[in-house]
Amino acid sequence: MRIRLAILASSSIAAFGFAATPAAAEEGMWTFDGFPTEQMMSEYGWAPDQAWLDRVQAGAVRLTGGCSASFVSPDGLILTNHHCIASCLFDNSSAESDYLDHGFVAARREDELRCPGQQAEVVTGITDVTARVQGAFANLEGEALVRARNAEIAAIESESCTDTATTRCQVVTLFGGGQYKLYTYRKYSDVRVAWAPEDRAATFGGDPDNFNFPRYSMDASFLRAYENGQPVSTPNHLRWDPRAPQDGEITFVVGNPGSTSRLWTESQRAFEREVRLPVTVATTSELRGRLIRAMEESPEHAREGLDTLNGLENSLKVYIGRTTALNDPGFTGPLAQAEADLRARSAGNAEVGDPWATVDAAVDAYRDLYMPYRFITPSSSLYSYAEALVYAAQERAKPNGERLPGFTDSALPLAEQRLLGEVPVYPWLEELTLAWSLSKAREYLGVDDADTRLLLGRESPEQLAERLVSGTRLADVEYRRQLWEGGMDAIEASDDPMIQYALRLNARDRELQQLVDASYAAPLATAGAKLADARFSAFGDSLYPDATFTLRISYGRVQGWEERGNMVPYRTVMGGTFERATGNAPFDVAPAFAEMQDRIDPAVTYDFVTTNDIIGGNSGSPVIDRNGSVIGAAFDGNIHSLGGNYGYDGTLNRTVAVSTEAVQEALETIYPAPALVAELNAGR
Amino acid sequence: MRIRLAILASSSIAAFGFAATPAAAEEGMWTFDGFPTEQMMSEYGWAPDQAWLDRVQAGAVRLTGGCSASFVSPDGLILTNHHCIASCLFDNSSAESDYLDHGFVAARREDELRCPGQQAEVVTGITDVTARVQGAFANLEGEALVRARNAEIAAIESESCTDTATTRCQVVTLFGGGQYKLYTYRKYSDVRVAWAPEDRAATFGGDPDNFNFPRYSMDASFLRAYENGQPVSTPNHLRWDPRAPQDGEITFVVGNPGSTSRLWTESQRAFEREVRLPVTVATTSELRGRLIRAMEESPEHAREGLDTLNGLENSLKVYIGRTTALNDPGFTGPLAQAEADLRARSAGNAEVGDPWATVDAAVDAYRDLYMPYRFITPSSSLYSYAEALVYAAQERAKPNGERLPGFTDSALPLAEQRLLGEVPVYPWLEELTLAWSLSKAREYLGVDDADTRLLLGRESPEQLAERLVSGTRLADVEYRRQLWEGGMDAIEASDDPMIQYALRLNARDRELQQLVDASYAAPLATAGAKLADARFSAFGDSLYPDATFTLRISYGRVQGWEERGNMVPYRTVMGGTFERATGNAPFDVAPAFAEMQDRIDPAVTYDFVTTNDIIGGNSGSPVIDRNGSVIGAAFDGNIHSLGGNYGYDGTLNRTVAVSTEAVQEALETIYPAPALVAELNAGR
Repeated sequence: MRIRLAILASSSIAAFGFAATPAAAEEGMWTFDGFPTEQMMSEYGWAPDQAWLDRVQAGAVRLTGGCSASFVSPDGLILTNHHCIASCLFDNSSAESDYLDHGFVAARREDELRCPGQQAEVVTGITDVTARVQGAFANLEGEALVRARNAEIAAIESESCTDTATTRCQVVTLFGGGQYKLYTYRKYSDVRVAWAPEDRAATFGGDPDNFNFPRYSMDASFLRAYENGQPVSTPNHLRWDPRAPQDGEITFVVGNPGSTSRLWTESQRAFEREVRLPVTVATTSELRGRLIRAMEESPEHAREGLDTLNGLENSLKVYIGRTTALNDPGFTGPLAQAEADLRARSAGNAEVGDPWATVDAAVDAYRDLYMPYRFITPSSSLYSYAEALVYAAQERAKPNGERLPGFTDSALPLAEQRLLGEVPVYPWLEELTLAWSLSKAREYLGVDDADTRLLLGRESPEQLAERLVSGTRLADVEYRRQLWEGGMDAIEASDDPMIQYALRLNARDRELQQLVDASYAAPLATAGAKLADARFSAFGDSLYPDATFTLRISYGRVQGWEERGNMVPYRTVMGGTFERATGNAPFDVAPAFAEMQDRIDPAVTYDFVTTNDIIGGNSGSPVIDRNGSVIGAAFDGNIHSLGGNYGYDGTLNRTVAVSTEAVQEALETIYPAPALVAELNAGR
Repeated sequence: MRIRLAILASSSIAAFGFAATPAAAEEGMWTFDGFPTEQMMSEYGWAPDQAWLDRVQAGAVRLTGGCSASFVSPDGLILTNHHCIASCLFDNSSAESDYLDHGFVAARREDELRCPGQQAEVVTGITDVTARVQGAFANLEGEALVRARNAEIAAIESESCTDTATTRCQVVTLFGGGQYKLYTYRKYSDVRVAWAPEDRAATFGGDPDNFNFPRYSMDASFLRAYENGQPVSTPNHLRWDPRAPQDGEITFVVGNPGSTSRLWTESQRAFEREVRLPVTVATTSELRGRLIRAMEESPEHAREGLDTLNGLENSLKVYIGRTTALNDPGFTGPLAQAEADLRARSAGNAEVGDPWATVDAAVDAYRDLYMPYRFITPSSSLYSYAEALVYAAQERAKPNGERLPGFTDSALPLAEQRLLGEVPVYPWLEELTLAWSLSKAREYLGVDDADTRLLLGRESPEQLAERLVSGTRLADVEYRRQLWEGGMDAIEASDDPMIQYALRLNARDRELQQLVDASYAAPLATAGAKLADARFSAFGDSLYPDATFTLRISYGRVQGWEERGNMVPYRTVMGGTFERATGNAPFDVAPAFAEMQDRIDPAVTYDFVTTNDIIGGNSGSPVIDRNGSVIGAAFDGNIHSLGGNYGYDGTLNRTVAVSTEAVQEALETIYPAPALVAELNAGR
């Protein structure tokens, strides 16, 4: 799989809540300031102490592209998944030097490949700011509530991180508004690829095997963090232990799960099942089809579209898995029961009141807004640049406290880095996605809808997409820089058709956002805090918050599972690759694997499964043993884990990881990198 | 829209049941031997007498391609929709003479275009054979029940129609097995196109406007039935009245609604919502995307793929509409309530027992079989030929009573006509659909599934599709004839890869069919009769059966509806076309329309809506006034009608028709056909 977060970002809005009932064994994506030591001790007979937790936290890395990772040497070496850096390889490739296809081993550190827009971050502190944030909007409601909350958060972030070049501050909403925590990060905004296997080695089995197990995937890569042109010093790295995992041993996964919705109310799940998932699956499937066919048209299209297709198919599998889960009464029944139980326990609790009714009303309001809100933003990288430039120009003219969250002082550096990254743009792909999204807007909003008319005017989706993509200069990073630096004057003076289009949509886009804030986000913020009260009151504080792409730790163990009466073993071995291979994509063995078949130890543990509770965003997370050493990199969940957004079932849900033993074999034999091997050994 | 049945055929399995409660005003697709005269009289103050019904039945035509129609002159002239004959125009077209694009007016009758595989049928008799069929399987169950029932039906059909050249006999299962009726038909197997407007005139607004209103569509065409090379004599034709419909006037729609599921139980609707619709929408959307992109690759692809894309988008809109309906508690609530009500009324009725439990168990069994059953049949016209040839060779070797329903003596003539029709085959399109369906089979069944291995072996979907399509000779009608006539010896001797592939899948395909018969179809046949008992016992016999692509009559009136507080007027006028046009497809005015704009009377009523209850298969149905004259041809439903498979809401559901006034204007002014005008006038 690819449990990279970026692609799943559309599902992140309004995720809130937390475990309705205390977590079952292994369930839980725990914060580092709320690790359930006693619970683990009682279940496993052992639990990490504070020093262990501190050490692990210091070595855990968040990649702003939507993944997790870990430092594994004193010289800034980072272990993550191949699929987390595939875009970087892709952006550095051309038809002549295709690093995605052929893999990449830096002969010298100077050859390491810079990843545009990528940033590595390590948590350096967690502070509770709940009282201050909640106090700022205590007597407000609707849009005013949202504004006041955002302003207070912006102020806290701005005060706490004065050096925005090397630190980042982020106030995180936990428990749906029950808690607000300030996370401070040491950040590294120059990240480069040191080593990557062939794409086919990482994606052996392709989409058909994605979210499945047994698996035979080398989904691992190494990055390196730089500062001032030099590798950074990272003495607090994790230890690399290239050994096979043992059946039943305790494992931790430490990373940044992107978003879960485990505490949604029945009405929120109903909206998901009835409205959002159906439109998402139908439209994404059509885009998948358009792209598959376009990639068959030429080798260039095949290469240039691959990264987008991979992301798309991964997301689609998630959406389809969620659809299946929410349409399975055996899955949803316990969730409904948990809500009924919490309501019963909260009956008569005046502090709690009836937040469910508040949520129901908010969801009803959102039903009316959802389609225009979804479709007012056309899909295209070039449009995203235009939209960001227009918004940034407008927002930067305001005081920090009045800006939208993505444009506050603390958020601007990353926004700028993303906007000004040197990323190739493929006009055919831009046109394809733009025409698709505009045609879907017309389909779902209707031909005679005012928003459809705003989006299309009298042009057809295809005609408009062609005109905007062929006419815009936004693929040129220098032009983007001019507009970024020139502010609103430069934007308004621009004759770029994509900029003008973003300006045309801007007022309605803002209006829809305000409507959503007022009738949906604001009531949810209030209700979220009440639901948190209800749960804390019913179950105490041994609860974990829904995922928020912030650092979490999950405990579990190496363990297979039973599938329709058959046990699925906990691991695969590298020799199995050659048995599964058919010679036909995506079951064709990567060329270097094939070449080295005689020298690869067939008994090396390749991929393995654990009971850890993870989700998209956890990709690249180190799998850590009780010694605190890295023994794998999580890269997928099994098919049952696709319902993990809503609930966790320890008998079936599994994390899928590539073993450090297999990565070491690849470093030594298949894609030789003796300097990296030495570096990893030195750091042990 | 296109309410042509063919595309919707996949939804026809196991549709059963009938109105849970007596039909509300306008609801109902009534059989001609069960017209609710008293009910209509009490609601409308008027109802047709038997002579009126007999006259109308005699002029009503079923087109085996999946549409409805009517005779409108004494010389075999047939009115139907343009979209019902688009495939025929397409099959007669080439890049040089594109009748689909440019329209077609036969200068002389000798120039009329033969439609391969098309057949026109008129009901000549309806006989109750319930006792005989039910008696044949009275003490049986499982697969034996299905076999006995099929054998008895085959015997009845065979005995009743000895002249299979001009007659057809069909035993129809009504009320889910509560009734069996023998329908006899006069059939005409040589059908030709006499007149068709430009495709854009019929499809103005394209998919975006499909299933919407207001509409501006000339979705009408004329066919002519031939026998022995001469137009047939049809003295019992309906009268053509080229006048505007009047707001509120009584209308009848007479045609062949394909399939409804209004009496499904809760468990059947749950299966539809939870399993079948999600997989159908996701996979069809992807195919749509692949095809849209492929059609952009060249003018040839654009032309050759159009008919398939139109059908696909139409079906998809239906599936998405059904998804929306079944995910709308406001829609499903009353259906659940009706079931609860019937259960309550049936409590303690020993004759009825608990058929709901039987259905629940059958649906549970079907859940386990559904995915392999769905995916064991790859999608490709060429594969369909191969499958039909293999099945026919096997089945024709058996006695009539032991054959599968599609291969009995009474069914073979149409099967042969379809198989040996001269229809162009486009290899790129065959490969596209075949590779798509095989890749979806792998996705939904899983890489390691035995059926996936049977379907693919070690080949990839793309590779297998290429090998089969490039290697087969089945596009050649003479080769198909050889195999059809050569029987099993010829099939087994063939080295055609598609034939060999169909043989490879045959045993498993039959096995799955038997499993579905035994654990699903058979229990439903038993339960269907019990549910019929329950309903007749609770509500008497003023009920209509679910649609079965047999002749029905619906009464209603010309009437707009209220949409979010605004009235949608009952009609559009031809001049509106030019106001709605943007110049960009699909809102570009058809060239002949544009050319004749000054001469077209802008006030002519173009399309109009009525409250008649119709569904896919009704396309082309005459809209008849109380005089029995034709005043329109139904071609669509509005967006609300998409839930019509499960239930009818008279406040919102509407039939969309093109007026005879508009067709007359087109015949006189836009696509002049003076001979047809004279013929229509002579027949009035």
